[in-house]
Amino acid sequence: MVSKSNAKFIKSLQLKKYRKQEQCFLVEGAKSVLEVLNSGYEIKQLIATEEFINSIAVLDRNDFEIIATSAKQLGALGTLKTNDAAIAVVRIKARKEIELYSNTWILALDDINDPGNLGTILRIADWYGIKEVVASVQTADFYNPKVIASSKGSFCRVDMFYEDLPEFLSKVELPIYGALMEGEDVHSTQFGQGGILVMGNEANGISGQVLSKVSRKITIPRYGKAESLNVAMATAIICDNIRRSHQAPPELVSHN
Amino acid sequence: MVSKSNAKFIKSLQLKKYRKQEQCFLVEGAKSVLEVLNSGYEIKQLIATEEFINSIAVLDRNDFEIIATSAKQLGALGTLKTNDAAIAVVRIKARKEIELYSNTWILALDDINDPGNLGTILRIADWYGIKEVVASVQTADFYNPKVIASSKGSFCRVDMFYEDLPEFLSKVELPIYGALMEGEDVHSTQFGQGGILVMGNEANGISGQVLSKVSRKITIPRYGKAESLNVAMATAIICDNIRRSHQAPPELVSHN
Repeated sequence: MVSKSNAKFIKSLQLKKYRKQEQCFLVEGAKSVLEVLNSGYEIKQLIATEEFINSIAVLDRNDFEIIATSAKQLGALGTLKTNDAAIAVVRIKARKEIELYSNTWILALDDINDPGNLGTILRIADWYGIKEVVASVQTADFYNPKVIASSKGSFCRVDMFYEDLPEFLSKVELPIYGALMEGEDVHSTQFGQGGILVMGNEANGISGQVLSKVSRKITIPRYGKAESLNVAMATAIICDNIRRSHQAPPELVSHN
Repeated sequence: MVSKSNAKFIKSLQLKKYRKQEQCFLVEGAKSVLEVLNSGYEIKQLIATEEFINSIAVLDRNDFEIIATSAKQLGALGTLKTNDAAIAVVRIKARKEIELYSNTWILALDDINDPGNLGTILRIADWYGIKEVVASVQTADFYNPKVIASSKGSFCRVDMFYEDLPEFLSKVELPIYGALMEGEDVHSTQFGQGGILVMGNEANGISGQVLSKVSRKITIPRYGKAESLNVAMATAIICDNIRRSHQAPPELVSHN
């Protein structure tokens, strides 16, 4: 069973203030917990049903505390509507430096507010092999339980960096693409081998300061009448166009 | 003010049973209500703040009852967290026949359970100029308030038809594309001028009975390690590929 003081500690990690203070965050549900157990993250505590504990016995892990509990208590401790498996208390990773290579793609998020959108964007980045996401400091917290849940395990494979975005963009030497309602058609854009894709806030798009750093404005062509696309959907569509473009046969080089 | 019996009636429309019985549904929030006021839907009642009522005075509508109320009561009557504008009680449209043309694209949904996913898919269909969606009878209800809200007004422009999906598909003469984890790469698929795109259930994908009607299995190539994409994202990406392919220059025809 989970002690009262431990329950209080676990619940406190639903709030950013305490995650920062304790340098820990929560991972909830069987699938996400299995992903984090198999990742480079340091696990501090695993609170789980007997069934889940038995299921991971093969992993033979003794580097963290394991506490058996009921599905009912898991529900009370965490944020998921139902959780009949596990909650892991995980150590926040030490901050590392972003790595910029000329042949890699990076996402830059300008004030993505909704944690569900952020988690979904991480999942898309992971699908399209993008390993680094830079975000404005106003962007939702990477370690928010809703971000972790909606990333469906992709938080283990995508690193996120919070930066002063205009300053960061003014220092990089990669081409900077910005998604706007009016820009070059993504279907005919020849994306290079590497670059930065900037996605803007759900309501206001890309801010003026960030926009001034964008070197190429791109847009998803519309064939019907919907006013807009959700930012996560737009990210998915543009990433697909980038990879498709990138996959194009290399230009023929003269043999002279 | 809204009478007690009317409040009960409005709240009842959150449930499918009463929507079916009363042949009415709810549209909530300023943007969606404005869309439905400008659509072909018949409005039965508008419950709104004085401010919202004043803002639509220019429309000069007297074909429905208008009831002034407070934002607080709107919150209590509807499903949105906050609603400081309006709720419309709208008449469900008479069922019409689906129209199949050889040069149009139609979505077919095989048990999409989540109302948020369904609403988002309607928004995507609307963006990509797809006007008809066929769905299995187990798919979430088109008139569910969460579907209406997440469609962001697109419910006004996309018609949905609930059918026995295997039976429907066995009768159509259009090519039937199915989104699967293993199939032809959508980046190299030459989609025709028209067809049906089948998207499967969130957890189980396309069911066996429906799959047997699919003539071309297609897949979104993965460049990273995410296990899957959400069904709405996958729909967006495939629709983008269809429109892009469709836009491709026509094949050269011999002049002989």
